[in-house]
Amino acid sequence: METKDSGVWGYFYRGAGGRFTEDPAPEMTAMQDEGVPLKGIHAFDKAHVVMLIEQGLISRRDGAAILGAFQQMDEEGYEAVRRRIGGAGHSGEAYLIQKLGMETGGQLHLGRSSSDLLAVTIRIEERDRILEILEGIPLLVQTLLALAENHKTTILPTYTHFQQAQASSLAHYFLSWVSVFLRDVARFQAVYRRTNASPAGAAIGTGSPFPIDRERVASLLGFDTVLPNTWDAIFGYDQHLELFSTLAILDANLARLCSDLYIWSSFEFGLVELKDRYCGTSSINAGKKNPQALEQILGLSALATGALNTAFAIDRLPATAWEIEWRVWSQQLWPILRKTVQALTLMRRVMESADFKTDRMAALAGTGWIISSDLASALVREKGLPWRIAHQAVAQLVRVCIERGIGPKQITSALLDEVMEDRTGRKLVLPQEVIDQACSPLACVMARRLTGGPAPEAVAGEIGACRQAIGAEERAVAATRESLARAESRLAEAVQLASTPHNT
Amino acid sequence: METKDSGVWGYFYRGAGGRFTEDPAPEMTAMQDEGVPLKGIHAFDKAHVVMLIEQGLISRRDGAAILGAFQQMDEEGYEAVRRRIGGAGHSGEAYLIQKLGMETGGQLHLGRSSSDLLAVTIRIEERDRILEILEGIPLLVQTLLALAENHKTTILPTYTHFQQAQASSLAHYFLSWVSVFLRDVARFQAVYRRTNASPAGAAIGTGSPFPIDRERVASLLGFDTVLPNTWDAIFGYDQHLELFSTLAILDANLARLCSDLYIWSSFEFGLVELKDRYCGTSSINAGKKNPQALEQILGLSALATGALNTAFAIDRLPATAWEIEWRVWSQQLWPILRKTVQALTLMRRVMESADFKTDRMAALAGTGWIISSDLASALVREKGLPWRIAHQAVAQLVRVCIERGIGPKQITSALLDEVMEDRTGRKLVLPQEVIDQACSPLACVMARRLTGGPAPEAVAGEIGACRQAIGAEERAVAATRESLARAESRLAEAVQLASTPHNT
Amino acid sequence: METKDSGVWGYFYRGAGGRFTEDPAPEMTAMQDEGVPLKGIHAFDKAHVVMLIEQGLISRRDGAAILGAFQQMDEEGYEAVRRRIGGAGHSGEAYLIQKLGMETGGQLHLGRSSSDLLAVTIRIEERDRILEILEGIPLLVQTLLALAENHKTTILPTYTHFQQAQASSLAHYFLSWVSVFLRDVARFQAVYRRTNASPAGAAIGTGSPFPIDRERVASLLGFDTVLPNTWDAIFGYDQHLELFSTLAILDANLARLCSDLYIWSSFEFGLVELKDRYCGTSSINAGKKNPQALEQILGLSALATGALNTAFAIDRLPATAWEIEWRVWSQQLWPILRKTVQALTLMRRVMESADFKTDRMAALAGTGWIISSDLASALVREKGLPWRIAHQAVAQLVRVCIERGIGPKQITSALLDEVMEDRTGRKLVLPQEVIDQACSPLACVMARRLTGGPAPEAVAGEIGACRQAIGAEERAVAATRESLARAESRLAEAVQLASTPHNT
Amino acid sequence: METKDSGVWGYFYRGAGGRFTEDPAPEMTAMQDEGVPLKGIHAFDKAHVVMLIEQGLISRRDGAAILGAFQQMDEEGYEAVRRRIGGAGHSGEAYLIQKLGMETGGQLHLGRSSSDLLAVTIRIEERDRILEILEGIPLLVQTLLALAENHKTTILPTYTHFQQAQASSLAHYFLSWVSVFLRDVARFQAVYRRTNASPAGAAIGTGSPFPIDRERVASLLGFDTVLPNTWDAIFGYDQHLELFSTLAILDANLARLCSDLYIWSSFEFGLVELKDRYCGTSSINAGKKNPQALEQILGLSALATGALNTAFAIDRLPATAWEIEWRVWSQQLWPILRKTVQALTLMRRVMESADFKTDRMAALAGTGWIISSDLASALVREKGLPWRIAHQAVAQLVRVCIERGIGPKQITSALLDEVMEDRTGRKLVLPQEVIDQACSPLACVMARRLTGGPAPEAVAGEIGACRQAIGAEERAVAATRESLARAESRLAEAVQLASTPHNT
Repeated sequence: METKDSGVWGYFYRGAGGRFTEDPAPEMTAMQDEGVPLKGIHAFDKAHVVMLIEQGLISRRDGAAILGAFQQMDEEGYEAVRRRIGGAGHSGEAYLIQKLGMETGGQLHLGRSSSDLLAVTIRIEERDRILEILEGIPLLVQTLLALAENHKTTILPTYTHFQQAQASSLAHYFLSWVSVFLRDVARFQAVYRRTNASPAGAAIGTGSPFPIDRERVASLLGFDTVLPNTWDAIFGYDQHLELFSTLAILDANLARLCSDLYIWSSFEFGLVELKDRYCGTSSINAGKKNPQALEQILGLSALATGALNTAFAIDRLPATAWEIEWRVWSQQLWPILRKTVQALTLMRRVMESADFKTDRMAALAGTGWIISSDLASALVREKGLPWRIAHQAVAQLVRVCIERGIGPKQITSALLDEVMEDRTGRKLVLPQEVIDQACSPLACVMARRLTGGPAPEAVAGEIGACRQAIGAEERAVAATRESLARAESRLAEAVQLASTPHNT
Repeated sequence: METKDSGVWGYFYRGAGGRFTEDPAPEMTAMQDEGVPLKGIHAFDKAHVVMLIEQGLISRRDGAAILGAFQQMDEEGYEAVRRRIGGAGHSGEAYLIQKLGMETGGQLHLGRSSSDLLAVTIRIEERDRILEILEGIPLLVQTLLALAENHKTTILPTYTHFQQAQASSLAHYFLSWVSVFLRDVARFQAVYRRTNASPAGAAIGTGSPFPIDRERVASLLGFDTVLPNTWDAIFGYDQHLELFSTLAILDANLARLCSDLYIWSSFEFGLVELKDRYCGTSSINAGKKNPQALEQILGLSALATGALNTAFAIDRLPATAWEIEWRVWSQQLWPILRKTVQALTLMRRVMESADFKTDRMAALAGTGWIISSDLASALVREKGLPWRIAHQAVAQLVRVCIERGIGPKQITSALLDEVMEDRTGRKLVLPQEVIDQACSPLACVMARRLTGGPAPEAVAGEIGACRQAIGAEERAVAATRESLARAESRLAEAVQLASTPHNT
Repeated sequence: METKDSGVWGYFYRGAGGRFTEDPAPEMTAMQDEGVPLKGIHAFDKAHVVMLIEQGLISRRDGAAILGAFQQMDEEGYEAVRRRIGGAGHSGEAYLIQKLGMETGGQLHLGRSSSDLLAVTIRIEERDRILEILEGIPLLVQTLLALAENHKTTILPTYTHFQQAQASSLAHYFLSWVSVFLRDVARFQAVYRRTNASPAGAAIGTGSPFPIDRERVASLLGFDTVLPNTWDAIFGYDQHLELFSTLAILDANLARLCSDLYIWSSFEFGLVELKDRYCGTSSINAGKKNPQALEQILGLSALATGALNTAFAIDRLPATAWEIEWRVWSQQLWPILRKTVQALTLMRRVMESADFKTDRMAALAGTGWIISSDLASALVREKGLPWRIAHQAVAQLVRVCIERGIGPKQITSALLDEVMEDRTGRKLVLPQEVIDQACSPLACVMARRLTGGPAPEAVAGEIGACRQAIGAEERAVAATRESLARAESRLAEAVQLASTPHNT
Repeated sequence: METKDSGVWGYFYRGAGGRFTEDPAPEMTAMQDEGVPLKGIHAFDKAHVVMLIEQGLISRRDGAAILGAFQQMDEEGYEAVRRRIGGAGHSGEAYLIQKLGMETGGQLHLGRSSSDLLAVTIRIEERDRILEILEGIPLLVQTLLALAENHKTTILPTYTHFQQAQASSLAHYFLSWVSVFLRDVARFQAVYRRTNASPAGAAIGTGSPFPIDRERVASLLGFDTVLPNTWDAIFGYDQHLELFSTLAILDANLARLCSDLYIWSSFEFGLVELKDRYCGTSSINAGKKNPQALEQILGLSALATGALNTAFAIDRLPATAWEIEWRVWSQQLWPILRKTVQALTLMRRVMESADFKTDRMAALAGTGWIISSDLASALVREKGLPWRIAHQAVAQLVRVCIERGIGPKQITSALLDEVMEDRTGRKLVLPQEVIDQACSPLACVMARRLTGGPAPEAVAGEIGACRQAIGAEERAVAATRESLARAESRLAEAVQLASTPHNT
């Protein structure tokens, strides 16, 4: 039995001869990017046929022929075969019709639609990339923890409003990023759980009148659960918005870390130097060393927030269903997911290999007015001044020092009392060693032993807690990998079983 | 002891006389929106003093005087008092200095900074609004479930590409939104957990050299945990991006539901009519009835995605710390959070009171070619045709019907065979009653008994599961409310205890 | 003379052996999309050499050898040759060094930098696409004007708040889009003028100490002017933001037109049907006809606003210069520019070939309460009622009609007076023919003869004015094309002259 | 004659008793921000009545009464009166009905709709703010030109990739911003022209059947032209997108300038210090001086791009008309327009008063490898080396210097030849004074005399040209102001004439 539809469009039902009298216009198809991810399509094609056989919706003989054809496709390399034959999500059907004829091949699509084909392959692609991210972040975190371990007493000036604010340690700085990336892991774990749910069998949103088994297909494809409403399974767009947001937030975090390193890389700051292999130079100024790797990641973050915007814009279109527009957002998603996986590796290697200029950090911390807060604290502690009076006295002292060209290491007890007398009419007679101690950035750090603070003992405790937390995440993602591997075996065995003639 | 700083700026340390020789320029302060949320400031002021007393960092007498002053503030209405005195986050200190003098009042800020003041009050404000959202969504879900219960056999045409796609039920449609909003609840629960962690004591990012007790303050303020890194506690901006995203996604979901109802409200669709009280009319065309409530929510969603963009843009600024810019994003956040709480109520009341036009739904479902898929299914089921051949035969049949002006209820077995013969050279001789049954939208719905499908028994099961799920969420949020109430009592008791003279 | 740098990186100065000891890391280069537009690079390479010769900065002999090599490149197809040799913007230099050796080929880059290479080629690419847009919009406008000419008396219901508002004509609707697209033309003309200014010679932002002639290079490259500040020439990013915005606005306009047609295409509206070739169907529901072409353009608009966001995000990065990030925004720009050119053609062809359902338009206009405004106007005109009283009386009349199931064509003078008496205690005794006339959508249109209104005579005048306006724009873009063609000849002649040995 | 509608909603036609049986629900109106700009409403109310009288559509007596009432409103302060009476755009009608009764007051709205009321007042508000921006930018430009005049020989290191790139002058830097802001002026001029066109009389998009005179109203309101299509006049949303984009670009430009100054303000760069009055300090670290004014403008830019996003999102809503949503975007617009006007003043005053640290600029320029390009140029110029060989030799030289701890001022001819010999096997024997000259940042600047370059003579020419350009813009905006003042007089006179009884 043959169809009257001619040409490749007819195979895939889209051209003249069926519903239409014309093939698609080239000026329309030209605007359409291709690139449906094929991995999920291929797996779904197989799992669907296994289920159709088990449910008696296709004969064991026809089912075996189809699964045999798919196995042959695997041998040739399914991606290449499917790209060659065209038809995107329908490449399986096109292949089967060419190979086995319409009578057999034309049975593949029973109980499905393009919508669940797309929804399944998109979720499988999303899940694969999310897993890679869930493996990539812990590696970066381990690098940060190892760096923190080595820099517990490395003094670092911190900045607020782009001005030196307080002395801290480089370890404390690295740990602040561990906190951020641990939250990223938590967000991606949640997205993973919501993503790895099966839309298969939801067809165009209402499912099929045939008695298909959604649970079985979900199990063969490694989905943890079955989405409980067929309309939502296809058109529940919020899930993709959540993935885009989570991705944009991770990329923003990476970019913010890069932004710090970028500033630190300048001659003027001089707090870090990247390895040559992560830098570029100039075709005109031969002396330049540009921290190019950081720029790649900064650029990625701009892409990700733009794509998030596109994803929200698509959501606003005046209808409930958008295969065409799905292509728009999903094709924005793949390169950004892929680049984010790359960026995690790049970020980690940059950090591992970077030359942190600890001497310069200490030097900078000693030259500015970073110690003002601790000097005021000393006045409170030693002389019982109310905080605000101490604070304002130091404020005036700093102003006077700047006016007179006096640096923080040259503050004397007499100078302090000159200011105090002017403000309050009395002198403090603070011992010089108290002033000197207050003006030592190292002492500032050592004194901050509060929970989460930069003192080495607080940092050591924090490192331990973070080690435990990230270890748990690593085990969780490993367990997920194993679960997916078991599903893959399950599918392979079911295909093997069903495609062996003597089993029919 | 008095400071030499003059005027209100001096009180809050910002003007001439201390670090500076000039007061802030009016052309600068004019650009600065005020509006720091005061609830968290007020609570933090008290909890901080309680802790300072307990840690011996402030005398019991001075502490009692300060807490007594705050109790008096409560009697007068703390918001009004603080707005009147000015100073935003520092209104507490300004009040105390005016009331108790610098010696006593000037001790309040010991061990804190504007940064943790802001971070605390922002998180408390976020937590309060998130809780209201976590209470609002379940009410909307219950409304949707009650509607679904009543409309299990109400036929509804579904649309993809803005064209009729398949027959479903109104109940199935409502349930698809329940799935969406349950995910919103899960996302907000996660944001709540990450938001309700205490930054108090982190000061400007490195904490204080004084032995403050961060755990105690957190407990008095109802925070579930203490943020484990003081820098991250202040500058871990990702948490706010997550809240903005989660909010923008919820608002996008509400907008998408409104978009459906908006389209359904048109004369041409005619599937729903809103109560007059949710509509507007025209100052020129007296016959109009515009579904204005839906437009409010559509507008809110546009605001929320814009503000999300602003929040990402702020994250990109070239520094690690941004009190000023915090004002920008946080002031975008408050009205959108508040309006989202309102929108949940409005959406629910609109749904409860709307007149769903069930006759029109059935009529529309019967006039288009929505039944094409089930007619093809019948050919497969009754005559064993491969799916694609059946599908393409129906495609041609629809084309022929449209050319000849034949509607879906007028398809005869003979007409079908005319097409079949043209395509395949043979006839099917399908009984007319099979065709009529296939072309019945009600039968289409009844036949879709698969997991998550629109058949009444599938829908009944889904309603039950959703009832359980949303009930669990309601209990969770109630438990959170109780936990916060306990913290509030804890703080009140501690203040009471410490401000009573005989306890000193 | 040879360099010690090894391999391809060394040729382009980027690898080990010069400034660096390592080649770029693969994990960094992997993240970097290629795809610098080569047309402008190729032209600039030639024009620069011509100028260097003329200024005596390179010998006539070496110059002739270089230009001869470029001519050979042209014969082989310069794009393929440059892609093969690699080096992106520096492909010319790499080619010359391979072909002519370092002594000769190494002279190409004198007085330039990667920055002006990129800036030149980006502006040339932008200019080419802008010109195609400036040619594409007028063709679409002409189509709209031709349609307007044919539909001056075709009644169309207009919609506000997605509800019928007033009767208009299809011609008037088409003309409203002509107004929009004429503004797009004006915006693109302005962008063109600001884009077609030469950054050549600005090098890395400060130019070169060699006496190069920027005016000569600009003239050879078809630039209308020379950018007057070398720093701004490279880093004046606002110009690209303007192009992105202008593009996003055009795409939003196209999307809004598509959104109307999309809604009109539904069964429920039924106001238009697209040709089969601009539609898709469904792999499960054989009866569907989805207006796919419109979705392509709707999707494009979402891409364009996302990319605009990315462009603003890039602008926010913490430095003044961004070759790497330029790649990010410029690579977003090219596909959107190209697709916009395609979308203009697609939109035009869809409009030309669409089947506008004029009977359905008239029928819809007659069934709703679109005539309310004109009925109130009749009360004012015939009976001297103040507008608001007439308006409110009709409001009540419509409500009563709906309650009683009375349609707009069944309004009687008696019914009107029943309402009038209830509201005002008196009757109007309006002749029935006045009511019938007021309730005729055609009469509503005919009566609106004001400037810019839908009455046929007003529309005819508007068509004439638009014809003139678009004609002027067509002539302007043709003149620009000619000017560019002359510049191209100028460059070809100069190259020819300089590469001929006997001229040396 | 009285209406039966009760309460304030009835006055404005919106409540129970007319089309509806219920007043608007409070949960809906609560979400609705008020704040329609009233200036244009007030002027339009008057101009419309003048025209109605002139066209004989309202009696001279009633017209005089109405205009008299508006004059009384002016005496009391029309804004306060209108806010008090409520009704937003319809406050005029509400006031007249209260004051003069329905018979007279109910005539005001004849031939108008809420849509053109809103469109008129929005365009008038936009025009007023655009004009202020067109006055503010030239003042900033004049400041920049004055600064440039004073800093023609002030050496400034420029940065690309956040690394020192080339020596330039501070004047050249300031001039690059003049180029940017001149383009902003051109864009705002274009937006002004397109904005200042009259939508009055377009009513709900199709105008009125009454013979109203759109040209007369436009003239009385100071509009330059009448929008030629009534539908487009109301729903041509692209014009507002253009204004938002233009604003976001200006704010991005200001933010980028602020970003430079922000970085320069750091201790590490130390290139500028802002006046105390443009700075903030810290409540904990008394030594801090934060450049707060810059942060205000950086924050504004983030707001503006977010609001641009909102504006595009609104454009995507599924209908052609959006009074409600207009409120959303227009209420985003007003504060950003207002703050942009403020930001122009703030930016200017910050620049005027800032302390540019010219010594530090010179010092920084002399310590890095900024001179690499000019050293390579010297090798080309003096020894005829091909550029790339010279460039790569300097690259290696810089690497060697850094390895050995040698600074740019310590490069000797011998060291250069050590590298040359290693690379090429031969020595250059370059005189030391050539090297020293090449390594002088001042000499680098002096040598760049090309068009648009930083040499003082080039800068002087550029200053002159910019003075001319900005002068022309100042005259243009002054002429526009005069034209608007004439229109204001025209309206006042017409009102005076028509409201005087003996003229009836």
